[in-house]
Formats: sequence, structure tokens, C-alpha cells
Amino acid sequence: MQIPVRLGVRSYTIVVEPGSLAKLGDHLRPLGLGSKTALVSDAGIRARYGGPVTESLRTAGFSVVDIDVPAGESAKTLAVASACWDALVDAKLDRAATVIALGGGAVGDVAGFVAATFMRGMNFVQVPTTVLAQVDASIGGKTAIDHPRAKNMIGSFHQPRLVLVDPLTVVSLPDRDFRSGLAEIIKHGIVLDAAYFADLERSIAAMLGRDPGTLERVIGGSCALKASVIERDPEEKAEIRYTLNYGHTVGHAIEAVTGYDRFTHGEAVALGIVAEAHLARRIGLAAPETIARQEALLRAVGLPTRVTGLDPGRILDAMARDKKARDGRVPIVLAPEIGRFRVVYDVGPDQVRGALSTLEGA
Amino acid sequence: MQIPVRLGVRSYTIVVEPGSLAKLGDHLRPLGLGSKTALVSDAGIRARYGGPVTESLRTAGFSVVDIDVPAGESAKTLAVASACWDALVDAKLDRAATVIALGGGAVGDVAGFVAATFMRGMNFVQVPTTVLAQVDASIGGKTAIDHPRAKNMIGSFHQPRLVLVDPLTVVSLPDRDFRSGLAEIIKHGIVLDAAYFADLERSIAAMLGRDPGTLERVIGGSCALKASVIERDPEEKAEIRYTLNYGHTVGHAIEAVTGYDRFTHGEAVALGIVAEAHLARRIGLAAPETIARQEALLRAVGLPTRVTGLDPGRILDAMARDKKARDGRVPIVLAPEIGRFRVVYDVGPDQVRGALSTLEGA
Repeated sequence: MQIPVRLGVRSYTIVVEPGSLAKLGDHLRPLGLGSKTALVSDAGIRARYGGPVTESLRTAGFSVVDIDVPAGESAKTLAVASACWDALVDAKLDRAATVIALGGGAVGDVAGFVAATFMRGMNFVQVPTTVLAQVDASIGGKTAIDHPRAKNMIGSFHQPRLVLVDPLTVVSLPDRDFRSGLAEIIKHGIVLDAAYFADLERSIAAMLGRDPGTLERVIGGSCALKASVIERDPEEKAEIRYTLNYGHTVGHAIEAVTGYDRFTHGEAVALGIVAEAHLARRIGLAAPETIARQEALLRAVGLPTRVTGLDPGRILDAMARDKKARDGRVPIVLAPEIGRFRVVYDVGPDQVRGALSTLEGA
Repeated sequence: MQIPVRLGVRSYTIVVEPGSLAKLGDHLRPLGLGSKTALVSDAGIRARYGGPVTESLRTAGFSVVDIDVPAGESAKTLAVASACWDALVDAKLDRAATVIALGGGAVGDVAGFVAATFMRGMNFVQVPTTVLAQVDASIGGKTAIDHPRAKNMIGSFHQPRLVLVDPLTVVSLPDRDFRSGLAEIIKHGIVLDAAYFADLERSIAAMLGRDPGTLERVIGGSCALKASVIERDPEEKAEIRYTLNYGHTVGHAIEAVTGYDRFTHGEAVALGIVAEAHLARRIGLAAPETIARQEALLRAVGLPTRVTGLDPGRILDAMARDKKARDGRVPIVLAPEIGRFRVVYDVGPDQVRGALSTLEGA
């Protein structure tokens, strides 16, 4: 499946194809890039996939310099970005060269930030290997590193030249990571596409069984939904892109108050979806059945929908520090029904507290 | 004078107006920005202009947080950028807030980089107070910090929301800084506009006497020329933007091999213009009179046109590291006649050596 992302001179293609990892070089060749590449990855991912990817690049005529970063979120520091810049200078890469991110969302975030800022922007290619990165982080040009006091605080928009998704890479993901990625897939269905959501409801067993055909269809469909939003709002300037934030206003706050170690991002988003679904019901925007379908699907794929021990006051504080805040007002995306969204700005703290209290329930 | 820069959703205006510094708030108000601003400047500039600028902002309803950076190029480090990010987090500035750079090119470069990368891009306003910054650095969205091994190596494109030029600020500039800025003005005339160049030739005495009306006309004219290039190529993807690099391929190399302390940027560009002018003659592209007029104007405003003691081999090495290199080929902009340009790619090292030897002559 090839999904075009139409962004004028910044247009690119998302390739979703089993086995495509070993064909990266062929996909890069027509793009008119310089001959040098830097392959940014962590040691575990490089051990698993570095061989075929590098061979494919070399066969297609590209030179490859390896740049190693730590695994997971610890890659997203200024020190790691700075070491990557040093490595690019050492390797004498120029602006026509290409940084390739091979791995999960964190590798893509830091490698993208490095590519966005080296010589004011060099070519960047995403080869995501987790569900989360394939359907969400790798698409849309968001790059970031963390500030000691706030995640993703430093970054920029820098669109990739290609996103290459090999759905077979997620077959071997640890169970918790795999299920966490499904939270973003479900999110796309809830706010953007009722038919896609219904397909997910029908495909639970096949998804959890990691059937390759199902993975390709579901992951590809999710990429296409995200791409349709990016095309309409490439730099998060309008309401449409807020849809991608469904479940995240509360979800990010839950991550922040639990120190980013109790829940994975996807688990926090699942809880955020539940809280925001109940918020929609409380303000009279959504019917109980709409909330029930969201909760049922999250539960069916093994994501949490209830949690105890969260301090609602701290959640509200964390929500107020949202990057989307504008002079103190935080927009929240809600789903009036499956496949539709509405952005609301003036939800009172009491209603948010009420919705949060639902998370404590049985 | 108001100069529109038409860049679609990123369009903005360059205001060139004597006394405009004290009206910054009025010019910001119609832009729909958030209410918070951070005023980035160095201690010397802040002492001179911070008062009226801040008063104007407060009167127009903006809050102002001061962020101090070191004076000159030493502001352009990762450590300074990082301290600025910290200050923005401390001040709880959000994406609707505005970073205002008040000062010379270095302040604009680092403040722009910080604005480009904080929360993936916040509003940015340039208030340049040197000739160099007014006619060149503040326009076009280039932001940067230095890498220990290469100037401007880390940065991004981030267009300002407004550039406010008060030509009266350059009346009090130290003589060397003032004359250095004229190198960029002369460069714009050489490659872009014969009539403008002829006006400069006629206006030498009035420019050097810093006559306010002449400064406004010459600076405004130069801003308009640069804006016309930016509109056609906002992110240096095509040949047209290379015109702005006239004199800089050799000039940057001269700066690099002299450790950035023997010449100001403008002086190095003046020498680069002379070398590139002679290069154009050597490859049969330009007539001797075209070279003579460039040299004469540079000399008349007190810029260097000859230099001894440079090692041509090191200059050639430094040129090969140019950010515009693409797989090792460095484009060079030449002027076949005043007001016209041509980009050449395959100038041999012997011809460059020959042109450099001219700099040693009498």
C-alpha cells in the first residue's frame, strides 16, 4: 500500500508493505537525494534490522554511517542530539545527505530533530518499527527532544522525504508495546472514521493474533487517516490537527503525574480516551453508547480503562501546561459520536474532575 | 516604508521607519499574537533601547520577560540556546507567545533558533539594530547557532511574524560595524539591481555621513531586494537564493581560516566579492569594468579589497565544507555584469587560486 501525503513541495509517500525493510534503498533511489546517509538507531534495533537495511542502501548506491542512540525515551536529550550533530560533522555529511531513523518513536523524534536542525534541514526518512511509531510518531513531521521539565518541549516540524512501514516488524514486539500502539489506532477510528472503527471491532482477534494481512490493513488504514489530517494542517495551526490529540490532553497529564514510568504512552492515552469520552457525556455532547463502544474496544485489546490513586488536582495542573494552551486556555478534542470530533475550549475544572473520577470506578 | 514578504501563510511585513523602535507594540497588536513576549537582547543593546521597546510593548498590552544573552557571536552556542529554553519554560510562555530579538545578527540568530524549536515553533519578531542585521540577517528566516567546528551549522528556517527596522539605530554604530554592514548592501546591488547599485555609487558621501533619509532609502531598498529573493525561494532550495551568497563562498572561507577574529563578516564578504569578481573575469564571464566598479565602491566606503598572508590551500579546503555543497560540489554565484547573476558549479581549484592571488595584488 502506498499512501501519498500531499504537502506541496514537501509531499511524500508512506509505503506500507510487508518485507519493505530490505527494499529501503530501492524506495530512496528515485527521490534525488545525495549519496550519503546516516542510519540512526539503538543497539537492539540495529542488531535485529541493521543488516538488511544497510545492505539495501549500499546496493542502491548509498554510503551509510551508523549513529547509535540509547534505546527509548532516554535518546531524546540535548546531549544525544548534540552527539548526533558531532557525528554528522565528523562524517562530513552535507545538506543533500539523508538521516534515516530506524526504530521506535523516540529514535524518530531525536533523529528528526537532528535532521531538522543540521545545516538548517537535511533530508530525513522514517523507518518505524513499532506500532506507535508506524501509525503515529513517524507521520506528520513532528520532531522533538525533551526538556528536563517537560517532554517534547524542544523540537520542530520537519517533514520526512519517505516513511517506510514494514508491518512484519511489529509481529515480534513485546506484548505490552504492541497493545500500547493499538491505542493510537483506536484513537484514529474514534475521531476520524466510523467504518474503520467498526473494522477494528471486528478484527480484535486477528489483530491480537498479529495476522500479517490484518496488520497491514489496520496499520495502513491508520497511516492513511493520520495522513489525511496532516495534509489539511501540516503544522498544527488549525483545529483539525487537534483531532490527533484525542485522549492525549488527559493522557499526557497522566503520564506527567505518574513520572512517565507507571504507564506506557499508549496506556496513558487509553485512560485519557476514557476520561475524555466521559467528559463528552458529562457536557451533553455524546450518548452513553458512544462511550461504551470506546471502552469496550480498549478493554478487548488489553488496554487499561480504569486506574486508582491519581490526584485530580495534579492532573488539572499538568493539563494547564499543555503545549496547545493559548494564553491559558487548553483546547480539548471530544467525540460526539464514533467517527466525529469537536474541539471545546471552556470545559470547567469541575467537569474534568468528574470525568477523572470515572477512571476510579469499577 | 512597509515591505511585504509574500510567503503564503508565513507572509509578513518589514517595517523600515525612523523612530519605529518606540512603536513596536503598535505594530505587533494587529498580528493576533498571544499576550506574552520574551525580549532577547544583550546588556549593551538593552541599556540603549530596552526602555522604549519595553514601554511600547506594555502600553500595547503585552507582558515582557527579559532574556539576556552575551554580546556578539558568543551568544550563538548550544549552552546559550539551552538557557533561553529554560527561561521560556520558567516564564510559562506558550506557543502563542512571541520571542522578540533586539540587537545585531547574532542575537537574531540565536533567538530565532530558540523560537523555532521551543514547542516546535513559537512566534518570532526581529528588531535588528545593526546595518548587517537590518538588510540581511533579520530577513529570510535563517536561524542558527554555531557548532564547535563550524559556524551556523545548527539551525532551521523559521520566518518572523514581523521585522521592524529603525534606521536611526545605525547612526550610533561604531564605524567599523557600520562600514561592514555596507558590504551586504553593495552585494545586493551587484547581483540583483543595477539601478540600486548606481544609487549607492552616487550616495557614498551621504551614506558615510549617515544621513537619515539616505539610510532609510538605502536600507529599505536593500530589504526589498532581499525580500524579493526570499519570496521566490524561502528555504534555499533553488538557485535564486544563492544570489544572496555572492561574495560569501570565498568570504566565509576567509573568516574560517582567519579564526573569525581578523575580519568582521562584512570585511570578509568584501574580500570575497573581490575574489569572486575576479573569478568571473578569469572564466570569461565578466568584463574588467564590472570588476572595477565593484572594487571602487567597496574601497570608497572603506572596506578592504586586498589582503596578504592568506593560504590559498586552506581557503580551498574551507570552501569545500560550504553548507551549500552537494556531494562535494560547491555552487558559486558570479556576477556577469552589475545587476545580474549566474550560478556556476564546476570552477576548478586553479581558477579559484588565481582569483585569490588577485587579493594579494596592489
